[in-house]
Amino acid sequence: MSRAAHQSADVVRLRRLGIDTYQEPVIFLSQKSPVCRAEGWSAQSRIAVERGGMSIVATLNVVTETLLAPDECGLSDVAWTRLGANEGDLVRLSHAPPVESFSAVRAKAYGHHLDAADIDRIVRDIVAGLYSDIELAAFLTAFTGAHAALDEAVALSRSMVDTGERLYWGHAPIVDKHCVGGLPGNRTSIIVVPIVAACGLTIPKTSSRAITSPAGTADAMETLAPVDLDLAAMRRVVEREGACIAWGGRVRLAPADDIIISVERPLDFYSHTQVVASVLSKKLAAGSTHVVIDVPIGPTAKVRSDEEATAMEELIRGVSDALGLAARVVRTDGTQPVGRGIGPALEARDALAVLQQASTAPADLRQRALLLAGHVLELGGAAPSGGGCERARQTLDSGAAFAKFEAICVAQGGLRTPPRAAFVNTVPATRAGRIGAIDNRRLAGVAKLAGAPRAAAAGLEIHVKVGDVVIAEQPLVSLHAESPGELEYASRYLQANPDVIALAEG
Amino acid sequence: MSRAAHQSADVVRLRRLGIDTYQEPVIFLSQKSPVCRAEGWSAQSRIAVERGGMSIVATLNVVTETLLAPDECGLSDVAWTRLGANEGDLVRLSHAPPVESFSAVRAKAYGHHLDAADIDRIVRDIVAGLYSDIELAAFLTAFTGAHAALDEAVALSRSMVDTGERLYWGHAPIVDKHCVGGLPGNRTSIIVVPIVAACGLTIPKTSSRAITSPAGTADAMETLAPVDLDLAAMRRVVEREGACIAWGGRVRLAPADDIIISVERPLDFYSHTQVVASVLSKKLAAGSTHVVIDVPIGPTAKVRSDEEATAMEELIRGVSDALGLAARVVRTDGTQPVGRGIGPALEARDALAVLQQASTAPADLRQRALLLAGHVLELGGAAPSGGGCERARQTLDSGAAFAKFEAICVAQGGLRTPPRAAFVNTVPATRAGRIGAIDNRRLAGVAKLAGAPRAAAAGLEIHVKVGDVVIAEQPLVSLHAESPGELEYASRYLQANPDVIALAEG
Repeated sequence: MSRAAHQSADVVRLRRLGIDTYQEPVIFLSQKSPVCRAEGWSAQSRIAVERGGMSIVATLNVVTETLLAPDECGLSDVAWTRLGANEGDLVRLSHAPPVESFSAVRAKAYGHHLDAADIDRIVRDIVAGLYSDIELAAFLTAFTGAHAALDEAVALSRSMVDTGERLYWGHAPIVDKHCVGGLPGNRTSIIVVPIVAACGLTIPKTSSRAITSPAGTADAMETLAPVDLDLAAMRRVVEREGACIAWGGRVRLAPADDIIISVERPLDFYSHTQVVASVLSKKLAAGSTHVVIDVPIGPTAKVRSDEEATAMEELIRGVSDALGLAARVVRTDGTQPVGRGIGPALEARDALAVLQQASTAPADLRQRALLLAGHVLELGGAAPSGGGCERARQTLDSGAAFAKFEAICVAQGGLRTPPRAAFVNTVPATRAGRIGAIDNRRLAGVAKLAGAPRAAAAGLEIHVKVGDVVIAEQPLVSLHAESPGELEYASRYLQANPDVIALAEG
Repeated sequence: MSRAAHQSADVVRLRRLGIDTYQEPVIFLSQKSPVCRAEGWSAQSRIAVERGGMSIVATLNVVTETLLAPDECGLSDVAWTRLGANEGDLVRLSHAPPVESFSAVRAKAYGHHLDAADIDRIVRDIVAGLYSDIELAAFLTAFTGAHAALDEAVALSRSMVDTGERLYWGHAPIVDKHCVGGLPGNRTSIIVVPIVAACGLTIPKTSSRAITSPAGTADAMETLAPVDLDLAAMRRVVEREGACIAWGGRVRLAPADDIIISVERPLDFYSHTQVVASVLSKKLAAGSTHVVIDVPIGPTAKVRSDEEATAMEELIRGVSDALGLAARVVRTDGTQPVGRGIGPALEARDALAVLQQASTAPADLRQRALLLAGHVLELGGAAPSGGGCERARQTLDSGAAFAKFEAICVAQGGLRTPPRAAFVNTVPATRAGRIGAIDNRRLAGVAKLAGAPRAAAAGLEIHVKVGDVVIAEQPLVSLHAESPGELEYASRYLQANPDVIALAEG
């Protein structure tokens, strides 16, 4: 930029402050800066920041002391990265125009129906980074629950596909499976993908990191092999092995979802429309043609009743029909956690034990994986109707599935051993009794307090199942943490909430 | 705090950074700080900050560079003020527990009905500062539009009263009036209050600053007299003059509303439930017994149709009955701005001209003020049914209302002259024609671009009414700004959007 440009009031010099605000871009500007005064900006103003043809919108925090000179501005780390900024760069600031598509979010909140064009404008603006966090929160809330119609969910899914990359494989079927979540430890993908691929089907699995749970498939898989593949790497792995288990966030398949999640997570919000649009748009963008959706049902799972499951199944069927996807919904038991471990490394260990047919392998995780793999095999035409589960069992028991898993890991960058936590605390039963119920949501909360998913080794192992009879002092749960503070939080919470694992009279 | 406490990892030293984040408390902490590492915190974590018995909850921004030492922490200005912090103070940090009441917000978003206890917990947590901005945005969205039932609106209003201060006057009636807004320039309160008080009724009017508009009554009144009265001052003024026009935010009447507004404003969100709860809770807390509500109706007003007005009237009637308030809804024309000025000082000038019976007084503003004052006089028993408007006119024309207004201003701290803007740009008609329609919302947007309400002298004067025939070059609007940048924004927007004041063929 020229000297003349530098002298213009709306041009300021970047200073790296090193402030991580998570995904919302924030700009820091002195209240004494000429541009701030001329424009009449105040805290929360939305400001367009332009550097060499790149432009982002950031929320203003006003510096009221001497942290910045009047001709300087700071950016939060995410804003700095998106602009590709360097210390001392000159940037041009201007008033960000109101986001026109937000009027459609307002209309939706008032209960109005949106058409596909409205929804497409919203999604495009979200992907362009024009929505602030509170605007994303309003969007998410407005589309929650029963307030969205089928055609709105279809439009949302389509726009989420259209605003990102898309994979084409040149043949069919391309299969996939997905769990709508809410069941701690339900890490079946790591088992299903190699079984299905070993049977000759193509399954380009992308998965998310944890949203509201202690671990996503990507978090667990990452303790076994690299998952941070770009689109070219993902294509190479799938072309070689017929499968991958990659992190979806890196490949920009339906990237709107990754932005919405940044607010969905702290709100711990769960919307049917958003979940279905998120799942199906990712699958379609990945080039899938046939998809099995696992819907666990239980009083403390995400889907709590058969009625809720029916509503979700109808939504999945309606959206997948409109998108040209063949979808099969499989309802599963969601009354208690699956396997032993909850947390990235602990769940990975369970899955690995099943693949390796270790004597410690959790039987429930194995059964669920076989059931789902069987459905995928049937839907993809690799097993006759009713014969999928048996074909899956043979493939697992022959060692073919584990061999395929090793090959996938090598193709993704190498198989590795999941880490172990430095701090472990085993919580015993305070008295004898029978395990009456396990609260999935609060148990997931305990694993999160222990540090999962951020700390890969953190989480918990659960040593009992509903219906088990236990004696006093028998271990119920082992908490795993990477720091003493987190171990203490998790322990304290469990102590204060003994009914997370409810003991009935023996 | 002792040296031992200082050495504890969860105790850090405050450093004043001087960062204004508006109303959300933010804490800045180095990623290298022992407490951050021990607790496993990351950006967006919610953290309890305790200083000498005072405690707040703040959202974490992680300092990734050298801005703060590992044993220091910074606070945003609002957090600093709420804690009454001093440079170098020691504060203790801990993980803020999840806000339990937010699960009720989630339930509401899913379409469930909330009971009074749920709603009371939400409002108490909001007033305690436990809700983050995105949680407030979700709350506001979930209660928007048709999604709230009458009993929920009643519960919301009650809890908003219960969580703040409350005034009792020891006699009845205590009257008030309120406009649900959406009509630029509709600054009738400044005229109605002195008329009503001059007729012997008690009217302790509190009003808000602008929420989504270019000026609230408090903003306009502040250009004429101090409005920042505390509860004792407000009581003194009302006991002396029978009336006041004070800013409601200072007196902590229904303070939940003031917190919710901080997110309502940037979202530019407008929810019937929230508006009715906000208005009626403020009135009840101020000790009012009889309230007139002005509901302007027009395609670009907040209430757009007779059906919408009926829905709002039913809600107002239902909530006021439940709260024991006598409410009268007056529907008024909301098709175009009232008076000439839009913006704090410009609207104050219009109201003053009416009170002083100046030849420049806008006739429409006078008529509306007389109509509303008449309804208040009738509802409060100071005029026979049907005779209110005439009594109001006599009181205005006799000079009694202006004398009362002067006395109120003196009691509040002294009458002053509204400021004039340094930069004015008059926009002429580009051709001859007839004024077909005026878009209230976008015209309000122009006044906000010009700097209103933050810049008291900023805004615009509109020189035409719907139906007026104009010739080419005839002035349509004069833009007023306190800075050249703002004048340019407003001018540019109006140029790009000539249909804000739509010219039909003459």
